[in-house]
Amino acid sequence: MRATVMYGAGDVRIETVPDAHLVEQTDAVVRVTRAAICGSDLWPFKSMPPSETGRRMGHEFIGLVEDVGRDVQTMKAGDLVVSPFVWSDGTCVFCRVGLQTSCLHGGRYGDDGVDGGQGEAVRVPQADGTLVVLQVGSDDALMPSLLTLTDVMATGHHAARSAAVGPGKTVAIVGDGAVGLCGVIAARRLGAERIIILGRHSDRIALAKDFGATDVVSERGDEAVERVHELTDGFGAHAVLECVGLEQSTSTALRAARPGGAVGRVGVPQTESIPDGVPTFFANVTIAGGPSPARAYIEELLPDVLEGRIEPGRVFDRVTNLDGVPDGYRAMDDREAIKVMIDF
Amino acid sequence: MRATVMYGAGDVRIETVPDAHLVEQTDAVVRVTRAAICGSDLWPFKSMPPSETGRRMGHEFIGLVEDVGRDVQTMKAGDLVVSPFVWSDGTCVFCRVGLQTSCLHGGRYGDDGVDGGQGEAVRVPQADGTLVVLQVGSDDALMPSLLTLTDVMATGHHAARSAAVGPGKTVAIVGDGAVGLCGVIAARRLGAERIIILGRHSDRIALAKDFGATDVVSERGDEAVERVHELTDGFGAHAVLECVGLEQSTSTALRAARPGGAVGRVGVPQTESIPDGVPTFFANVTIAGGPSPARAYIEELLPDVLEGRIEPGRVFDRVTNLDGVPDGYRAMDDREAIKVMIDF
Repeated sequence: MRATVMYGAGDVRIETVPDAHLVEQTDAVVRVTRAAICGSDLWPFKSMPPSETGRRMGHEFIGLVEDVGRDVQTMKAGDLVVSPFVWSDGTCVFCRVGLQTSCLHGGRYGDDGVDGGQGEAVRVPQADGTLVVLQVGSDDALMPSLLTLTDVMATGHHAARSAAVGPGKTVAIVGDGAVGLCGVIAARRLGAERIIILGRHSDRIALAKDFGATDVVSERGDEAVERVHELTDGFGAHAVLECVGLEQSTSTALRAARPGGAVGRVGVPQTESIPDGVPTFFANVTIAGGPSPARAYIEELLPDVLEGRIEPGRVFDRVTNLDGVPDGYRAMDDREAIKVMIDF
Repeated sequence: MRATVMYGAGDVRIETVPDAHLVEQTDAVVRVTRAAICGSDLWPFKSMPPSETGRRMGHEFIGLVEDVGRDVQTMKAGDLVVSPFVWSDGTCVFCRVGLQTSCLHGGRYGDDGVDGGQGEAVRVPQADGTLVVLQVGSDDALMPSLLTLTDVMATGHHAARSAAVGPGKTVAIVGDGAVGLCGVIAARRLGAERIIILGRHSDRIALAKDFGATDVVSERGDEAVERVHELTDGFGAHAVLECVGLEQSTSTALRAARPGGAVGRVGVPQTESIPDGVPTFFANVTIAGGPSPARAYIEELLPDVLEGRIEPGRVFDRVTNLDGVPDGYRAMDDREAIKVMIDF
């Protein structure tokens, strides 16, 4: 089969790899019908050291079950399934409380002999704990929005939940990438009264407004913090969604929060320590978040997608086939595309 | 009147200062009957640069109202009152949500012409928003425990609340000082099943056990983290109370938390950034806390003190008069005393 392999910064190739096949009796093999490139895939695209063996890429996909191990009970060949971006057993102490990203027997696609999602097929370990069966056809018009449940919409939602977004709250969102845009959807869905998006790309800002953003801050750093304070009677936002992961964006997020507020961080942190530990302490600002337990959120968000109340699939502004994946990485890295969907 | 003034590291003096007197019509003048030295007073005791004018010290006190401004409505001369460690108006947007430490019109004792609590009398600004009238005599046997509501017990409680301590949870407490010991009381009061105290002073550990600690970890740093994991099936504690404020203790606290857990930090941070931003992200560990809104907690904790269900006053293991305050600082700094009460 063919799949995406990264050999180093800027070096993404489509190659023939061994066919996905069952290894454990808890596995499923899924023939991928839709996949996506993630903002987090751009970190290795910018900085991965050269590798001779390469790394299989992709962790957002929907597909048709082709084969299941003997112990798999909740799906059968022919079912359409959506996968969260990590696999998990669904039964451990962390899965049971809805934190599948910390599953004791889980892991990441592309690691240690597990396929990546940007390929023709994937062996999914712990299929029962991981995959959710969809009751729609594999070419349904909702496919882009359903695909966002694998990661980006679940991640925006996790940022909002971690920042305790709720009715009447003012929310600031740092980052106008696909996650930030899904954060706007999540904030509105959870009842936020005012949604301030920090960003400066006109196409993204237009989409943010469509999704429910009420205010735009195009400044950065100190000026952005000041502007958020001006928009909030000098206090800052109740909830701030950190959707980038850089030190500066994290500092902006922390300083944009009002006393007693919370920051939900979902951008993968690019520095070891968290800035502004002293002012956040004196203001009792809570710092929460991490990788989204998408598996826990899929069931919560699915009805809203199926009934059209939210349309996160609009973050995909480019569609390609498998051969177009390397150029898709380039387009996202160059900010030509917000997010790229792969149609197999 | 006489009061405590700090002139630099290690230089604490008892001096004659202008008598406390009403300035605003919202002030009260309180004749101090009991006060305390705080662990946070030891930071300037270790590091304050020499000052010609000095700094008035103390923010934990109980006393008798001597005079009130015309606008003060909730107390009168002769009332016994307890003060949280900051003053606050009780009506602003932050006071109304119980975050009086961020009061828009509040401030700190010892700042800008406001008296400190380690003196014979204090002008209390915003008396109605700040002080709570006590219905006991000024020599009541409960006085030490009532005095802890000004700061140390309220702070231990805030650490526990910030770390989301609740029934059945495992709690780890970093620091066996007076705040950590009150954290043990708070954790038990909130229903924690298991309470692990990190510390190595035998007198403090004995008191922690009396207060409800079930396990003791005397190691530090990496070894302490490892030990907490060993005690918790390899997972870490649900809730961790950071009661020190140093970079190492903060790191220990963050790494002792289990995935999805929370750290309540109440030790005043001595470094600008928060360590371990990456592992806490991947484990979805929440970092919360800050200065305790003691004013909000006094009413919650007061019945338990009055009815003897908690005895936080036991953290005072030395009593002195005003003249003994400089030696009280030394004794706490040398770890001879856990916490010193001043009896006027």
